[in-house]
Amino acid sequence: MTVLILTCEEDLTADMVVSTLHDLGVPLVRLDPADLPGTVALSADYVRNDFHGYLKAGERMVSLSSLRSIWVRRPGTPGARAAEQSTWLTAESEQALYGMLTCTRARWMNHPVAAMQARYKPWQLHTAHHSGFAVPPTLITTFPSVARQFAATHRDLVVKSVSGKHPGDPPLVLPTTRISPDVDFAGVAAGPTLFQRHIRKQADIRLTCIGSHLSAARKKSDPDEVDSRFTDNSTWEPVAVPDAVHRAVEGYMTTAQLAYGAFDFAEDTDGTWWFLECNQGGQFGFIQLDTDQPLAQAVATWLAAEPFT
Amino acid sequence: MTVLILTCEEDLTADMVVSTLHDLGVPLVRLDPADLPGTVALSADYVRNDFHGYLKAGERMVSLSSLRSIWVRRPGTPGARAAEQSTWLTAESEQALYGMLTCTRARWMNHPVAAMQARYKPWQLHTAHHSGFAVPPTLITTFPSVARQFAATHRDLVVKSVSGKHPGDPPLVLPTTRISPDVDFAGVAAGPTLFQRHIRKQADIRLTCIGSHLSAARKKSDPDEVDSRFTDNSTWEPVAVPDAVHRAVEGYMTTAQLAYGAFDFAEDTDGTWWFLECNQGGQFGFIQLDTDQPLAQAVATWLAAEPFT
Repeated sequence: MTVLILTCEEDLTADMVVSTLHDLGVPLVRLDPADLPGTVALSADYVRNDFHGYLKAGERMVSLSSLRSIWVRRPGTPGARAAEQSTWLTAESEQALYGMLTCTRARWMNHPVAAMQARYKPWQLHTAHHSGFAVPPTLITTFPSVARQFAATHRDLVVKSVSGKHPGDPPLVLPTTRISPDVDFAGVAAGPTLFQRHIRKQADIRLTCIGSHLSAARKKSDPDEVDSRFTDNSTWEPVAVPDAVHRAVEGYMTTAQLAYGAFDFAEDTDGTWWFLECNQGGQFGFIQLDTDQPLAQAVATWLAAEPFT
Repeated sequence: MTVLILTCEEDLTADMVVSTLHDLGVPLVRLDPADLPGTVALSADYVRNDFHGYLKAGERMVSLSSLRSIWVRRPGTPGARAAEQSTWLTAESEQALYGMLTCTRARWMNHPVAAMQARYKPWQLHTAHHSGFAVPPTLITTFPSVARQFAATHRDLVVKSVSGKHPGDPPLVLPTTRISPDVDFAGVAAGPTLFQRHIRKQADIRLTCIGSHLSAARKKSDPDEVDSRFTDNSTWEPVAVPDAVHRAVEGYMTTAQLAYGAFDFAEDTDGTWWFLECNQGGQFGFIQLDTDQPLAQAVATWLAAEPFT
């Protein structure tokens, strides 16, 4: 049984996982959907008893029925490196590839359908609340008057993007920004805007959940800093996961049907972990480099498990 | 409790459903996501006990907690009519709107996540097979040699698109085309291509499933015609649904978690209904016009049912 890894060529984190899978002696095929059609080829026929098919990547060939797991890591857009690119070719290639793969019995990290659901930020906050996390008061609105009222109530606010990252090329990460309650909120009429009560944090927490493996890392923060992704030189250090958070993570992962999730929390000056987001495709390589937590090994172990059990 | 209809302005089929909902005395809000931001506005705040929010369309305001059902009919792209359009604004608006709506307890026709899964053509054929439908031998491939072999085995073939329709503006519907087994298949290397054994059909069947309501219509066909959508002037007539097909439809809808599905079959000269596809967003107005089957009424009745039961 083979592990299928969908990612682009330059992916050091995938390299770490591949290396562990090699150590475990687990066969794998790594390919970038951007190379379909081209160096990646596929075929599936439905004749009498369901689909049978295979994928070819370079000289490697793998049968769909022999896939034990599929890791959707950083896949390129199907058709993106074809000689004649078009939206049409991308749609056809995307449908053929992912459509075939959703017919297999392989385990997914993460299934495209679960991933789609899990990207909705309002759904994340809703699910986090129901899973038992502490969630900061949040507003998403196009009404300036509602934004003004929220600001008057909570005073200390941040504004961040609803959808995650700016879809430029390369994508822009918009920093979370602290705003004064007295700013002019008229602009929110131009597009849904997400406001959140600012958590005065003494640390950032990144919790990585890989199947049933949980580990967390902590990075000290200046309570007056807002988005330390861009300013801070502290390193990540391992930290124990409180029991209540552990249970909430398990609940969240089950509801979201995710095999992998990267949770971000703000730890306030009382030590409470406030849920900020769960990124189903979040990075983990930088955490492993700082903490030596064996995250790539945990991903590899999850991918290597026998399916259908 | 209110029905929310997401569709563009010119939608005669939606008009029929709206008219029935008015007759039933059920409150509704109809809006086009393309008008967000603009004449459509939204607000949702998560403060202590989950999200509370509302949508505004023109002068109508509706609370998220009062939505009984959501009909995703022919929605425009969020942000598409904004003064300053951008991919970014579309992403933010899409995430805010659909993210908020997936936090409600409303029933969906169809849920965006189920719709995404149900669009994959290979998954449709796989699920159709497991639900008990007759499914024609089908091949999706980028290998010319495999296409040649399939043609040699099945002789009488059609080629059709994998993803449905060409994403132009306006979208192009590519007719299903009959091909000779002796053509040059070299071109399939340029993009995944779907081949299917040609069913010599004496009729087209359109079966519409709306919740637990099933009805089918039949249009006589010349067995030598391939895609009668473009050539035939016959009209649709009501036809009884065979028991085995009825059971297969129920199984398919349950697996796919769909509330609405438009199934296309080819009826062969023996009377067998061969599954061609299930379009989760398929039209039904043209069937109702020909057959007088009360499909709009069935949709309205489904949308009008009380939730949480």
